[in-house]
Amino acid sequence: MLIWLILGLGALSLLVAFMYSRMVSSVSIEKGAESPQEVAKLTEISDAIAEGAMAFLKREYRILALFMVIFAVIIALTVNDPHTSIATGLYSAVSFMIGAGISVAAGYIGMKIATKGNVRTAAAARISLAESFGIAFKSGVVMGFGLTGLAILGMLFVYMGLDMLLPGIETHILMEILSGFALGGSSVALFARVGGGIYTKAADVGADLVGKVEAGIPEDDPRNPAVIADNVGDNVGDIAGMGADLFGSVAESTCAAMVIGAAAFTLLPAETRLSALLFPLFVSGIGIIASLISLFFIRPKTEEKVEGALKTALVLSTLLMLVGLYYPTMKMIPESFMIGTKEYHNSGVFICLAAGLISGLIIGLITEYFTSHRFKPVQEVADASKTGAATNIIYGLSLGYNSSVLPMLLMAITVVIGFSFAGMYGIAMAAIGMLGTIAVGLTIDAYGPVSDNAGGIAEMAGMGKDIRKRTDALDAAGNTTAAIGKGFAIGSAALTSLALTAAFLTRANLPEINMLNPEVMAGLFVGASLPFAFSAMTMRAVGKAAFEMIEEVRRQFRTIPGLLQGTARADYATCVDISTKASLRQMVAPGILVIASPLVVGFLFGVQMLAGMLIGALIVGVMLAISMANSGGAWDNAKKYIETGKLGGKGSDTHKAAVVGDTVGDPFKDTSGPALNILIKLMAIISLVFVPFFMNHGGWLTKMMK
Amino acid sequence: MLIWLILGLGALSLLVAFMYSRMVSSVSIEKGAESPQEVAKLTEISDAIAEGAMAFLKREYRILALFMVIFAVIIALTVNDPHTSIATGLYSAVSFMIGAGISVAAGYIGMKIATKGNVRTAAAARISLAESFGIAFKSGVVMGFGLTGLAILGMLFVYMGLDMLLPGIETHILMEILSGFALGGSSVALFARVGGGIYTKAADVGADLVGKVEAGIPEDDPRNPAVIADNVGDNVGDIAGMGADLFGSVAESTCAAMVIGAAAFTLLPAETRLSALLFPLFVSGIGIIASLISLFFIRPKTEEKVEGALKTALVLSTLLMLVGLYYPTMKMIPESFMIGTKEYHNSGVFICLAAGLISGLIIGLITEYFTSHRFKPVQEVADASKTGAATNIIYGLSLGYNSSVLPMLLMAITVVIGFSFAGMYGIAMAAIGMLGTIAVGLTIDAYGPVSDNAGGIAEMAGMGKDIRKRTDALDAAGNTTAAIGKGFAIGSAALTSLALTAAFLTRANLPEINMLNPEVMAGLFVGASLPFAFSAMTMRAVGKAAFEMIEEVRRQFRTIPGLLQGTARADYATCVDISTKASLRQMVAPGILVIASPLVVGFLFGVQMLAGMLIGALIVGVMLAISMANSGGAWDNAKKYIETGKLGGKGSDTHKAAVVGDTVGDPFKDTSGPALNILIKLMAIISLVFVPFFMNHGGWLTKMMK
Repeated sequence: MLIWLILGLGALSLLVAFMYSRMVSSVSIEKGAESPQEVAKLTEISDAIAEGAMAFLKREYRILALFMVIFAVIIALTVNDPHTSIATGLYSAVSFMIGAGISVAAGYIGMKIATKGNVRTAAAARISLAESFGIAFKSGVVMGFGLTGLAILGMLFVYMGLDMLLPGIETHILMEILSGFALGGSSVALFARVGGGIYTKAADVGADLVGKVEAGIPEDDPRNPAVIADNVGDNVGDIAGMGADLFGSVAESTCAAMVIGAAAFTLLPAETRLSALLFPLFVSGIGIIASLISLFFIRPKTEEKVEGALKTALVLSTLLMLVGLYYPTMKMIPESFMIGTKEYHNSGVFICLAAGLISGLIIGLITEYFTSHRFKPVQEVADASKTGAATNIIYGLSLGYNSSVLPMLLMAITVVIGFSFAGMYGIAMAAIGMLGTIAVGLTIDAYGPVSDNAGGIAEMAGMGKDIRKRTDALDAAGNTTAAIGKGFAIGSAALTSLALTAAFLTRANLPEINMLNPEVMAGLFVGASLPFAFSAMTMRAVGKAAFEMIEEVRRQFRTIPGLLQGTARADYATCVDISTKASLRQMVAPGILVIASPLVVGFLFGVQMLAGMLIGALIVGVMLAISMANSGGAWDNAKKYIETGKLGGKGSDTHKAAVVGDTVGDPFKDTSGPALNILIKLMAIISLVFVPFFMNHGGWLTKMMK
Repeated sequence: MLIWLILGLGALSLLVAFMYSRMVSSVSIEKGAESPQEVAKLTEISDAIAEGAMAFLKREYRILALFMVIFAVIIALTVNDPHTSIATGLYSAVSFMIGAGISVAAGYIGMKIATKGNVRTAAAARISLAESFGIAFKSGVVMGFGLTGLAILGMLFVYMGLDMLLPGIETHILMEILSGFALGGSSVALFARVGGGIYTKAADVGADLVGKVEAGIPEDDPRNPAVIADNVGDNVGDIAGMGADLFGSVAESTCAAMVIGAAAFTLLPAETRLSALLFPLFVSGIGIIASLISLFFIRPKTEEKVEGALKTALVLSTLLMLVGLYYPTMKMIPESFMIGTKEYHNSGVFICLAAGLISGLIIGLITEYFTSHRFKPVQEVADASKTGAATNIIYGLSLGYNSSVLPMLLMAITVVIGFSFAGMYGIAMAAIGMLGTIAVGLTIDAYGPVSDNAGGIAEMAGMGKDIRKRTDALDAAGNTTAAIGKGFAIGSAALTSLALTAAFLTRANLPEINMLNPEVMAGLFVGASLPFAFSAMTMRAVGKAAFEMIEEVRRQFRTIPGLLQGTARADYATCVDISTKASLRQMVAPGILVIASPLVVGFLFGVQMLAGMLIGALIVGVMLAISMANSGGAWDNAKKYIETGKLGGKGSDTHKAAVVGDTVGDPFKDTSGPALNILIKLMAIISLVFVPFFMNHGGWLTKMMK
């Protein structure tokens, strides 16, 4: 019964995505365009972007496939639970491959629709703002609901498949195998977020530094050879990267809850136990309904109302979730249950879910306060640009540092609530609560890059200033909601990572981690250093890849006669190719750091140090990620604030100083900051999946030395 | 006997300082100067700097005195150990005042000699490099040995005084009272490091932005009204601030070791116990001899050899310490002793000391690698300036992040060694080992700002290019060693803070801190957010104070006719006044954050959460501090690298981009970064001193809620 219900909700989500996808595809470009020439031009540009995006995906997937196979073999060989005769390693490896496969599919769908939606959004901007907004927004819906539906159904099918293939399997072992699914999703996210993040910013920074600064041509100018790569980057980083990241979060938090639940609910009667176990999936299902209802309230009539409408939907879906969750929680979670020696209640579980939901929303609003130029912080950064780039940077960095404090305190409160009301299970519930409104959240997130791309396409196709103004209005709203989305993604990544760590500890039978144990303390130190190492790598990666791009753009300006005069066509494909190759090459080192750290520390020093490392990386990673994302967002919007004519407007020295901040902010907010989500989650899920290995062979060096 | 020996070594240190101070004072300015006019000019400038510095100190001390009295009253009222009839609060308050007083005295002496040494160094540069170097170096010796001697003697006198006044007092209570001394020293450091740090960079950034960028006049040009304030800042921040910081570290690590030792050595016979207890002081004493010997090897003949000579002294003193410590450790520490249920040995204590010493040296060398333009990292930052300020910033930030990883791993290793070989006592011993060579370390540290000032004075007095070239050579060497000193200061602050936390846990009877306790976890989260909040505050403080300075400088350029033509004299005093007032006003908020956080968390939520908070703040604070200090150092030296004629040299666009990084780096390396040392140490020593209060009244809110 319950399984059918979840199945139905997951299918509903996919159905919504499918319907919206049809709606977007059915809009013809001709409808909006002025002339057949414009249609041709629009099609040409959007085809180039779509081709570039798919070319990147293809190359990325090839490397990904190789990586997945190797990693699957490692899992199959090492993750064997000694307490059972089932080949858990093999099953985990298969579960891993399925998770990865579904995540890839979700990313592919998102990219497909985004590259269809962008050109249609641009064309429709000729008709009206509402029309144009509608298409961008619908493209977002496809991403939001499609991904959520795939995540729910994927996990459910793996669960059901295992239950059928291995009748009588112990629940906790089943859940362990299911964790492989989450690891698969998260591994894809590593490629999508880190590789995509490097891609998008290498192209962006490269295009800006040569185009805007050296050649003096505006953004998105078709004469700039890197312009297509830049637009491809929006899709690659902001659509596929963000999607894979949040797909991972949903899968991981659900798995964490189920692993802990399997231990907590062992003693319940079979029927009750199943509903308690599958409860996390059901929460996501309710989220789909709440998100769906709030969709219908997003109908902005004027430019000013776009941002408000999107925010209303977020708030509304949170409220609907709160109301909708109460009854199911009280019904599906037993009135009282034990974790360790402590007794908890279903009402407590509801409080944990609510804490996650509410704090997610507040974190989003705090992020908005610090990154929107309607508020004081960003205006101060803009103001500081009057005395040059240096003060702009100082104020922007300090804004980022400052902006990460409240979200962290909020998370501390959420953690205390989660722990107090439902122990480790409560942490997982808080994470699931925070991710409850993911369908609408992702919709809004994906809407942004589509509008951004639409603006780029309108510019490149020479559709004129009025059209560009409309797409800019859509894009501006998308920028703010993107910042909210980033704050939310980091917050949920933190709780997810903590939930995974809790699940890891549950499985490793560690009821306590004494910080005064030297191994734990050393783990904390090592963990604290990882986000810094990782950020350094990703920032340098963007720098290096951008340099390659700069060289190429300069070469084209130098060697293609008539390019700057607009009489010759730039060689876009080579730039796309450079971004693709450079980003995939540059992501190897940070990728290895993420994957190897937990494996090496767990193997050499054991689970105590590994636990310390996960917590150390978590707290440092969250602070760094929030501050980077918000510094970046603030710099971007401080520049935009000046471009509205304030403080001297475009072209003034103040504006030039703000552009420096904006460029520094690019890798901050779109590469290094978001990539830290992957660092903290992926290390935790690897630790969880490899528990059997660590239990058998972990702490090799420590044992040797004793 | 032992007490006499420590007394003798402390007195020797003071004697060395006194002798060198006489040597510096006895050099007459006339000897080097070309003409009576030059003497007059030099004297005038150096008097202005000395006056400004003393004016700042006076005003700072007035506020400090008020703060000290209030804080002393709070200590007297709240820190009463219920296990004894002795009024521990009152004695702690007195001990606190003494510690503060001695730290103030040390800072005062340092400033006095630095403001005498700077002008003599400038004048002597006419004679020879060796002569000039000698004076700057001797001024440093006064600071290094004076401060170390005062610290040792101060603690010994308080110890002896308490022993006499309160015969039969239990050792652990005596040591608790002694902790008040360290708190006093550390509180002064808050004012000196944070207030001084804001002062120096507000003046520097303000002077640079208007002078160099707007008016186009060179650095240290006498036409710039902020130039005296800028030079005052070097003394205020780099001499008094650094000195108070390290004075605090020495006192704190010694107290931490003695508090833990008091618990560990309870069962030893009286005689053996005393020598084991006083062992930490004796280590510092041996450090004085090792430092003294290595002084005689610092005799650079040419400009290129200055930096090498200074570094040789550091390495040599480390080696001498290693050799010199072995026998006393084996003799004074009992062959075996117990901490909790574990047995440790004197050989283990030696290993801990050695680990601290060696890792301190390596951290210094790593810092040099990342901040000297002889190596690749800084050259890369310089290279990145070719594409503008944005890439300069991106590379500089990423360099900072990267540079903090190895030192952190090194500290992790040191912590494991310390813990494994002597438990909590081992951590304190590692800190004491790292600080063992402090006399020579501080000598080199203080040498830098004296040379820097000398350069400024030579410029202002118009002594000509050749002289300036000599002082620049001295300054350049000072820059590199200053970077080493900063790395070392942060490393020792981290170990000191950890040792204090260990002492705090020992006193609070917490043999373990379970990270899975929600309070501890929340504490980690809260702690992790503090360094970010604190850095945001200090960076904005510099920004705000610099703005006030900029306004004033602009006003003077506007309203004083003939100022830019060099025919009228700038109003230096007003600029000095603005820096003084602004810095003292801007340090209130970060100061309150540091002092209130442990008190509020301890009082409301109890010692478990407080312990979590200390560790969270420690690991995040160390990473942030190292990365900020090194980013700043690298930007500074990348600019200097370009100024040697590389990549287009001074005045090129590349140079302009590098200047942006340098300006951003100013508050990074001289305000926010070093101030984090104070954050992590002061919160820990406050926690330690207030343990009796927390034991009686701590966790008020937590208890209420239960």
